[in-house]
Amino acid sequence: MVGCGVVGQGVLHHLARNHDLLAERSGSGFEVCRVAVRDTAKARGVDASRITDDWRKVVSDPAVDIVVELMGGTTTAREVAVAALEAGKPLVTANKALLADAGEKLFTLAEQRGLGIYFEASVAGGIPILKALREGLRANHIVSLHGIVNGTCNYILSRMAEEGKSYEEVLAEAKRLGYAEADESLDVDGIDAAHKACILASLAYGFWVKMSEVHVEGIRSVSALDIAFARKLGYAIKLLAIIKPAEARAVQVRVHPTLIPLHNVLASVSGVYNAVAVEGDVVGHTLFYGRGAGPDATASAVLSDVAEAALDLSGGVCQRRVVTHGFYGHALPVEQVISRYYVRLTVLNRPGVLAQVSTILGKYGIGISSVFQPEGHDGETVPLVMLLDSATGGQFDQAYREICALPVVHEPCQRIRVEDLS
Amino acid sequence: MVGCGVVGQGVLHHLARNHDLLAERSGSGFEVCRVAVRDTAKARGVDASRITDDWRKVVSDPAVDIVVELMGGTTTAREVAVAALEAGKPLVTANKALLADAGEKLFTLAEQRGLGIYFEASVAGGIPILKALREGLRANHIVSLHGIVNGTCNYILSRMAEEGKSYEEVLAEAKRLGYAEADESLDVDGIDAAHKACILASLAYGFWVKMSEVHVEGIRSVSALDIAFARKLGYAIKLLAIIKPAEARAVQVRVHPTLIPLHNVLASVSGVYNAVAVEGDVVGHTLFYGRGAGPDATASAVLSDVAEAALDLSGGVCQRRVVTHGFYGHALPVEQVISRYYVRLTVLNRPGVLAQVSTILGKYGIGISSVFQPEGHDGETVPLVMLLDSATGGQFDQAYREICALPVVHEPCQRIRVEDLS
Repeated sequence: MVGCGVVGQGVLHHLARNHDLLAERSGSGFEVCRVAVRDTAKARGVDASRITDDWRKVVSDPAVDIVVELMGGTTTAREVAVAALEAGKPLVTANKALLADAGEKLFTLAEQRGLGIYFEASVAGGIPILKALREGLRANHIVSLHGIVNGTCNYILSRMAEEGKSYEEVLAEAKRLGYAEADESLDVDGIDAAHKACILASLAYGFWVKMSEVHVEGIRSVSALDIAFARKLGYAIKLLAIIKPAEARAVQVRVHPTLIPLHNVLASVSGVYNAVAVEGDVVGHTLFYGRGAGPDATASAVLSDVAEAALDLSGGVCQRRVVTHGFYGHALPVEQVISRYYVRLTVLNRPGVLAQVSTILGKYGIGISSVFQPEGHDGETVPLVMLLDSATGGQFDQAYREICALPVVHEPCQRIRVEDLS
Repeated sequence: MVGCGVVGQGVLHHLARNHDLLAERSGSGFEVCRVAVRDTAKARGVDASRITDDWRKVVSDPAVDIVVELMGGTTTAREVAVAALEAGKPLVTANKALLADAGEKLFTLAEQRGLGIYFEASVAGGIPILKALREGLRANHIVSLHGIVNGTCNYILSRMAEEGKSYEEVLAEAKRLGYAEADESLDVDGIDAAHKACILASLAYGFWVKMSEVHVEGIRSVSALDIAFARKLGYAIKLLAIIKPAEARAVQVRVHPTLIPLHNVLASVSGVYNAVAVEGDVVGHTLFYGRGAGPDATASAVLSDVAEAALDLSGGVCQRRVVTHGFYGHALPVEQVISRYYVRLTVLNRPGVLAQVSTILGKYGIGISSVFQPEGHDGETVPLVMLLDSATGGQFDQAYREICALPVVHEPCQRIRVEDLS
């Protein structure tokens, strides 16, 4: 094991508790031979003789059959992964940043060596969604995938919805409770969800998409007002990772706040929970739900993967190999992605404003499917809320820019994509 | 393939459509060598030369590597299963009645022969829940499993809840739409769900429970009134398969209408959809959702299993073997199962009734957690609705019998178990 922070300690704890169960179910016993950590002085519930501060000693130890990388990051972690595979040892990892960054190279190397990379823990923690995509739904072309894959964002948006509190208030609370990191940006800016989206897309479509091609928006700009207005329109707001096929070797891969219908099961996923809705061309709609992070949920996935690696080793096979992983495809540019939009404008409280706005929308061929002026907002400016018909990102952005430049339209303005999930 | 009804034709249709995808993902091509049917005259989209009315010709054909049993029933299907395994061929089946009836014997035989039985399609159609239990959650002791595993019942209860219609009305509608069989009893009496519960329990705990030990109640007695009253109390009514550990080699396995909290994700599973909520001791709460029946969802699972069987064959391994399947355990007698209860009595509209009822409950040590007398029911008799605290089935039944025998209590009366799912 390389890295023994919160997740690593969860793995050690649950392996000690459930070792016999895991051994019975997989036909192998498991022993933690060696654990590499940065600071060997910290006690970790592992025999001191097994602790080292040199990850190379883990990888090169002839007693080690399987390397479990739980250190995080992309620099040393990548060296560990490459070294493990080059030493002929299967790799279990929870590292989404590493796979989003170097998945194509690592899977190519693994395939050359006939080895497996086991990475269930990298997406949606304890939910076996990667196994479901790779195996359970293997007879399906994936029509769409919509995932709530960042627990921090889902916690914040859920609490804002339930309590009407502001983003800042709930973020502070999430930090107090340990649901958000001291530096929250990786989560709230959507980067973590985008890493996971790259991995999900690779399993759904068999090729990698570069992080730089993924359209990412975080949740900082979502206000309690937007959540309340969306609810009036019959929608919840969730940060979704959205993956859909485009043309050959291209897919839509995007992460952004999204209005989804309140009656959809995804809308009832609240708090730190994750859920991934997958539509297959044979199976129809499916959904997978559970805790997406934390030492326990992650340990569940890591230990299951360790057992799979052991099964493959003892059978001399590599059943979880993902055959077509070794190349890059493209993400459809977001300007070409077609969506419906929710728009909230701050407009001068006078007649004729809607006419000006709808004239611009009409010029770009964008219909209005509903519009309302919420009550209780008297003053010089008032909110104007609209649901728009489908438009490409490019069309919409131009129209939105022109609308925001109207003298009758003031700050703040907001637009959020809508997914009907049907 | 043995049997080519609605499901079989779904399998053929989707295999033809998605063959290349499945081949790419599993490293094998697939060919339907032989199809046994009862009436060879019916056209089925298979080359006539491959159709036979003798299932033995399928099993004994040397070109056949994998036998797919889709005929249903437990008599001939069992012969087919045994013959396939004895001929050294892995078995793919969607037949829950067969596995609930003869799973222990069939898995013992399969283990002796080093072969796999692949049965994802037997429970919850397209949801890869068996794979999740057996593989994804293998590091977990299963704390509880609550499944909506019969789409017909869920459709009926959902429509009753949405429209306030009676059981009979919605059943007739379900038959018209093809969501219920002409003879609905296997579904609405809970038998089909109980078959699936036996299979789920075997995967969760590693041993089989006899159908005769499973406590089964169907949905015929659930009224629109109960659904409305439950909702007022914050609950939905669903037919659940419930599985929990008891002592060594014993489990709770029961199927009955159940009140569950409206805010739980399971409560939002409506229509013909299935969902299985699994709580693991490591992972916490998870849920798996999708279509539970129909040719498409079932084909998704059958084809995934065919690919797994092919992977195992080509690797010379049997990774999906369930090691400890070959014996029977016991179901905890329902009199010993502890539940909370919802009770609806029809009582004379006069003072003192509640005192009589609560005296009996008190005698059996059963507390009342809430009670209400719904408005709008003037007349000689009125409904009295109660939520009771936990009691064993035995305690409760005695108290309930005494209450129903009170002169102030008339017909109809109703009691439904409550699960808090927390």
